[in-house]
Amino acid sequence: MRIDELGEFALIARLTAGLPTREDVALGVGDDAALLDLSGFAADSLLVATCDAQVEGLHFTLGVASPEEIGHKALAVNLSDLAAMGAEPLWVLISLLLPRALDVATLDGVYAGLRSLAARYSVALVGGNVSATDGPLAIDVTALGRVPRDQALTRAGGKAGDLVMVTGTLGAAAAGVLLQGGDARLDALPDETRVRARATQVSPQPRVAEGRALAASGVVTAMLDVSDGLMADLGHLCAASDVSAELDAGAIPVDPVAQAVAGALGLDTLQLALEGGEDYELLFTVRPDGLERALAEVGGGARMIGRLTEPGSGLRMRFEDGRIEELVARGWDHLRPQR
Amino acid sequence: MRIDELGEFALIARLTAGLPTREDVALGVGDDAALLDLSGFAADSLLVATCDAQVEGLHFTLGVASPEEIGHKALAVNLSDLAAMGAEPLWVLISLLLPRALDVATLDGVYAGLRSLAARYSVALVGGNVSATDGPLAIDVTALGRVPRDQALTRAGGKAGDLVMVTGTLGAAAAGVLLQGGDARLDALPDETRVRARATQVSPQPRVAEGRALAASGVVTAMLDVSDGLMADLGHLCAASDVSAELDAGAIPVDPVAQAVAGALGLDTLQLALEGGEDYELLFTVRPDGLERALAEVGGGARMIGRLTEPGSGLRMRFEDGRIEELVARGWDHLRPQR
Repeated sequence: MRIDELGEFALIARLTAGLPTREDVALGVGDDAALLDLSGFAADSLLVATCDAQVEGLHFTLGVASPEEIGHKALAVNLSDLAAMGAEPLWVLISLLLPRALDVATLDGVYAGLRSLAARYSVALVGGNVSATDGPLAIDVTALGRVPRDQALTRAGGKAGDLVMVTGTLGAAAAGVLLQGGDARLDALPDETRVRARATQVSPQPRVAEGRALAASGVVTAMLDVSDGLMADLGHLCAASDVSAELDAGAIPVDPVAQAVAGALGLDTLQLALEGGEDYELLFTVRPDGLERALAEVGGGARMIGRLTEPGSGLRMRFEDGRIEELVARGWDHLRPQR
Repeated sequence: MRIDELGEFALIARLTAGLPTREDVALGVGDDAALLDLSGFAADSLLVATCDAQVEGLHFTLGVASPEEIGHKALAVNLSDLAAMGAEPLWVLISLLLPRALDVATLDGVYAGLRSLAARYSVALVGGNVSATDGPLAIDVTALGRVPRDQALTRAGGKAGDLVMVTGTLGAAAAGVLLQGGDARLDALPDETRVRARATQVSPQPRVAEGRALAASGVVTAMLDVSDGLMADLGHLCAASDVSAELDAGAIPVDPVAQAVAGALGLDTLQLALEGGEDYELLFTVRPDGLERALAEVGGGARMIGRLTEPGSGLRMRFEDGRIEELVARGWDHLRPQR
């Protein structure tokens, strides 16, 4: 059934039936606005708010990603932004722009993906909006969370001498995009490489627990999530902190699937990992004496990849042979034509 | 200049330069998320959250409404939702879906309209997102506010015997839509009728102060804003409150421009006022003894239009000749083809 056959009010009732809630939701969906109880906030807590939209044809492709994966990612990228501030996610609002011919089953799947990820982190869907559009399906999510005031981490705060660290591995999402291209040279890659690349691209896992733990550790000085690509996002951190950075090429945690895909296509593996984007790992800086503590907070799931340096020397990469290269903080521009 | 020539980061810098802020914004635009200080909240306050999108071709037409009016309305409809809960507006996040060929000057105008209305109510723009789209321009706003817990008003809470009241007048926005149609029978209408109808349609004024005052009065039992049309919205209130309602036809505050336009086109004036939608007035119910107090709170700018009755008899209209008609709570369905 098409959504315009179902109608707005029946659709909203269908999407919002039996939504998981939280004790601090005084009033959820169904009124002019949601009412949210702050009495569980510690006296020194800050409210954390972010929004991000996923648009068909630009951020996802129906038929490539499943509806569940699309819903998952629309929420995941927002939870990742909250995690990057060190915040605990609490509540989300979902605004949908819907082509009238969209199948209700597709939207059911999107909501199943949203609900599943929300439930994993005890996040409540408390509000939203549906509107028709003559354009592509768009899922715009606003996420709200909380963080103790003295633990909130921003992009500013990094100092020369701080260690640069990143969780997880880089480049698998970009490898997933390349695999979609269907180049024949990729046919020989094993299925597990394809599956992992695809999963990272269409179903990223936000670093919610890691973000909270790092913020609470007291040794992290600045943090953001890697959405535009490590180089671009490190550039943002350096600009906000007024520092430069020097990375150690041998330390960059290139994902094995990025290595496999770049190898098959004759691309520069390191470049794929540094500029690929959409990794949704956390990039953070740590006091010079904080390495062990930071590693302990994430169960070893992070690596030191360089150091912040005095302002004025930009981003530089030190290779194992001692060579140093100036890097350009290129990354994803959401308005320019796709690469 | 087209926005894709300017690029994402330059555009964001342009839109967010010198944004008005508030003391309780610990960190505004420019990081992964905004940090908002709750220390000004009274201990018993609730956070109020809502979102609503305006889409080109559906909610507004470039060339009919000015960019400033489009920005104004995108925020106004959200402030209206907060007002309907009795909340004070504080912070907003703006998510933009932008056709790549959109002119930067148009977007400057949209932001000027947003900023101007935000400044009037001391609302801070604290976050947002820009994304390209192959579809129409869309402006998705999430608004956050606060309300004392014991003053929050919902659609539920109305009881049989309560008075039904509405602020302002009804039907002018719908008259504005009809005037756009360009029917020759409307050519004779005076300019002031056209100007007022157009202004109400493209630049509605949210009832922010009235919403707060009514919530604080203690005599209001339920409230919502008139966005789908008085009948549809009264239907929502009755459903949520489990009551019926009887309206007094002679008391409906039909806007003079609705009368003029309906008269010229041979339409039913009352129907235009009751079903037109987008009035953004407040529809509320008041304890039987609360009429004077409610009127005083809004400086006389409201009218009693009927009463809530026991559940089971739906919506009824009493005419001056004693006749009673059953009404159908028809209103705007955002997914069905436009009327």
